[in-house]
Amino acid sequence: MKRCIIITAFITGTIRHSVSLSAQDYIICSDGGFQLARKEDILPQLVIGDLDSVTEKPDSLVETQIYPVEKDDTDTMLCIKYAAERDFDEICLIGGMGGRLDHTLGNLQAMAWAAEYWQAQGKNSRRIRMVDNQNDVLLMTPGQILLEGVPGEKLSLISHSDCCLGVTTSRLKWELVNAQLTNRFPLGISNEFADISCQITLEEGMLLILRCRDMEQH
Amino acid sequence: MKRCIIITAFITGTIRHSVSLSAQDYIICSDGGFQLARKEDILPQLVIGDLDSVTEKPDSLVETQIYPVEKDDTDTMLCIKYAAERDFDEICLIGGMGGRLDHTLGNLQAMAWAAEYWQAQGKNSRRIRMVDNQNDVLLMTPGQILLEGVPGEKLSLISHSDCCLGVTTSRLKWELVNAQLTNRFPLGISNEFADISCQITLEEGMLLILRCRDMEQH
Repeated sequence: MKRCIIITAFITGTIRHSVSLSAQDYIICSDGGFQLARKEDILPQLVIGDLDSVTEKPDSLVETQIYPVEKDDTDTMLCIKYAAERDFDEICLIGGMGGRLDHTLGNLQAMAWAAEYWQAQGKNSRRIRMVDNQNDVLLMTPGQILLEGVPGEKLSLISHSDCCLGVTTSRLKWELVNAQLTNRFPLGISNEFADISCQITLEEGMLLILRCRDMEQH
Repeated sequence: MKRCIIITAFITGTIRHSVSLSAQDYIICSDGGFQLARKEDILPQLVIGDLDSVTEKPDSLVETQIYPVEKDDTDTMLCIKYAAERDFDEICLIGGMGGRLDHTLGNLQAMAWAAEYWQAQGKNSRRIRMVDNQNDVLLMTPGQILLEGVPGEKLSLISHSDCCLGVTTSRLKWELVNAQLTNRFPLGISNEFADISCQITLEEGMLLILRCRDMEQH
């Protein structure tokens, strides 16, 4: 699987606690994400952003794409656009949630942009997710998905679109059969794996599959 | 203005840093929110939840509504339903965002539930918001809203629904005129007050108005 990792400028926890990096990953840093990467001795292939807030500039080993501060795209959106146009099976955002809620929601919408972009090209097997040390969010478009897990592990299904139609699960504690989820009622929160894997089918809409852990409150 | 405060079980920062409480507020604690309230010497009128995680039980001064652990509604949804059915001009959730992303998104959807519930009854002037020490999120349904602020203060507009139509602003740095916002492109992130107030008009959809501050990363 060809994977593109996008390191955002806001990460709760560390990059290495969020994801197991592989030597095959193509790594992009979204602006201030470059500093977070360097702290963990991670060298990206590309840095995209206005680089306004970056104190240690990328050296000549790292390709940079510098954009003006005032623009219609957020830095993370620029990274996602770059990656979505290329031949990756999965885009994985590191961080990007948990601080400013407008940024969190903006990143979810940027994920939806990529999913819609791929759908228009018939590339429905491509995936985009966002992870940190507490949360793993996968955006699902119509089709079927198999997830591996642990019995009892929490899993929430949340409609990103106004409606998700034909949501069917198997091997979850509370099964859904041809169900409708909306963005005006959080019906799918805190379901659980009933086995070591589960299957989710979606007929219409955009569905967020969230695997989130409780952590000590700070 | 009659306001109902709902103290959730997850708050980044403190309750008193999130909101200025008034003696007129009606205060509900959502389950573990009761302990957070007691830590700050806040006595709610009502506690709703399964009370499974509450170590210090509410005494006889506080009304409690105890629900089973396994239910379709989240604890916060139960609080919102209670409040939405009563005669409050505003519901203000304290916390409820920033930890588990499924809970954050579930709370936004519960806010949308309340907005739709009020719309069906023609009670369009009612408001629901969610605040903590970094974020203030207001859900807007079709109509017009006037916000007070400070020139330069950040403000983001994000479509909760698939589409928001007829979005028009005045006195923002980047004005929108009869614009369309979607949930597949975060166009309205990081706008700014250009004056001490701004006005936002929405013709169709559900719009999130977010006022978020940058904070030191921990």
